[in-house]
Amino acid sequence: MRKDERIYTAALVIIGNEILSGRTQDSNVQYTAENLTKWGVRLVEVRIVPDVEQKIVEAVNVLRNAVDYVLTTGGIGPTHDDITAGSMARAFGVNLVRHDGAYQRLLEHYGSEDELTAARLKMTMIPEGAVLIDNSVSGAPGFILENVYVMAGVPRIMHAMLDSLEGCLTGGAVVLSETVLCFLPESAIAEDLSALQDKYPDIDIGSYPLYRNGEHSTSLVLRGTDEALLQTAKSELENIVRDLDG
Amino acid sequence: MRKDERIYTAALVIIGNEILSGRTQDSNVQYTAENLTKWGVRLVEVRIVPDVEQKIVEAVNVLRNAVDYVLTTGGIGPTHDDITAGSMARAFGVNLVRHDGAYQRLLEHYGSEDELTAARLKMTMIPEGAVLIDNSVSGAPGFILENVYVMAGVPRIMHAMLDSLEGCLTGGAVVLSETVLCFLPESAIAEDLSALQDKYPDIDIGSYPLYRNGEHSTSLVLRGTDEALLQTAKSELENIVRDLDG
Repeated sequence: MRKDERIYTAALVIIGNEILSGRTQDSNVQYTAENLTKWGVRLVEVRIVPDVEQKIVEAVNVLRNAVDYVLTTGGIGPTHDDITAGSMARAFGVNLVRHDGAYQRLLEHYGSEDELTAARLKMTMIPEGAVLIDNSVSGAPGFILENVYVMAGVPRIMHAMLDSLEGCLTGGAVVLSETVLCFLPESAIAEDLSALQDKYPDIDIGSYPLYRNGEHSTSLVLRGTDEALLQTAKSELENIVRDLDG
Repeated sequence: MRKDERIYTAALVIIGNEILSGRTQDSNVQYTAENLTKWGVRLVEVRIVPDVEQKIVEAVNVLRNAVDYVLTTGGIGPTHDDITAGSMARAFGVNLVRHDGAYQRLLEHYGSEDELTAARLKMTMIPEGAVLIDNSVSGAPGFILENVYVMAGVPRIMHAMLDSLEGCLTGGAVVLSETVLCFLPESAIAEDLSALQDKYPDIDIGSYPLYRNGEHSTSLVLRGTDEALLQTAKSELENIVRDLDG
């Protein structure tokens, strides 16, 4: 990466009692992280907060001033525990208003006005000034308010909404990664690794121990935006591992 | 739950570039959440932060003043990217000192002083005043500093460390949960559900849509500390679902 190149950052806010209670295993963090990485945007923080307006407002207001993009998941459905749209309106100090585009999408999805019950109409109430995010799975849209992207929590819908944002988020240089697996405990390679990190400050070197069948091994991950530099550092690391019989 | 009963809260800080880059799927949030729930402690927030001292310090210092227990995972190994012990010392304004107990544990694990290289000795440096958490898997201990519990990131080690804390964390009434699965879209039951929530303010009712083979179904989850009240609310909910042919 050139020193003067702009780095684009994002934070993810997961609104979900079901994750905090342990009932549900999250799968939105990794999907988001993988896609943002591809788009040249760095995920720098994730917060998982409960379905409590004050907590949602606090997290979004802190993060939207700290990063380029805030993505949120969860709480945009028709039930009483879906409080995200109202919380976003509160965070931005705007009103929640009926959005004609959201109404049309739900009308198409449900087929007739008779089907638009009070619960379904709740999903047409969007913070004033927001732009919709299409929901190709179940009708009810997400929305964008300034730099905050509000999406569903159900993984299938969330992933479709995130996919639809490809090309919408400006990114910088893509962070590339290379992995070297070695059959050594990480303490055996730590000193050489530290020297390598000092030699290549623009490459981020991570070390992740694995325990399989009682055998020590370590995944060494190199990350950086300069492909040639990354390959040079990888070759040196492979030589280090070879010299240690790993 | 009686109104005067103390609620115990926890937050989890995951220190991990490997989660934020999408390389690794987290499995520590759910394990932590399930165990804390059993112990009568409520997980009220999770933050995933990068391996950056300032970010770790900020998260820990905010959260340790906001909840009863802060648990952290990641960054306690021997490599240059393991900066958690130093970050905790900074957060608490104490020194990092050689801990005799940690030294003894590593000596036992590695067998002789000759094996205690500089990298391995790094794992004996613990913030002054901390109490160790045993590591039954790989020797290097975690530690406790006031209300902050610092554990490994590798799931197998982290889970063993968390298991060893059972009985150490004071908890309150255990939150019990019951699930009613119905074959309805959540918008069809939203109004009845909202009325039920109003009738039972001490029960937390969540609604989670599922999409399987193109069929709509919804998982309705009731959570509360009073078993009898929970069963009463569950019966009413089952009647509501039956009346809606769901």
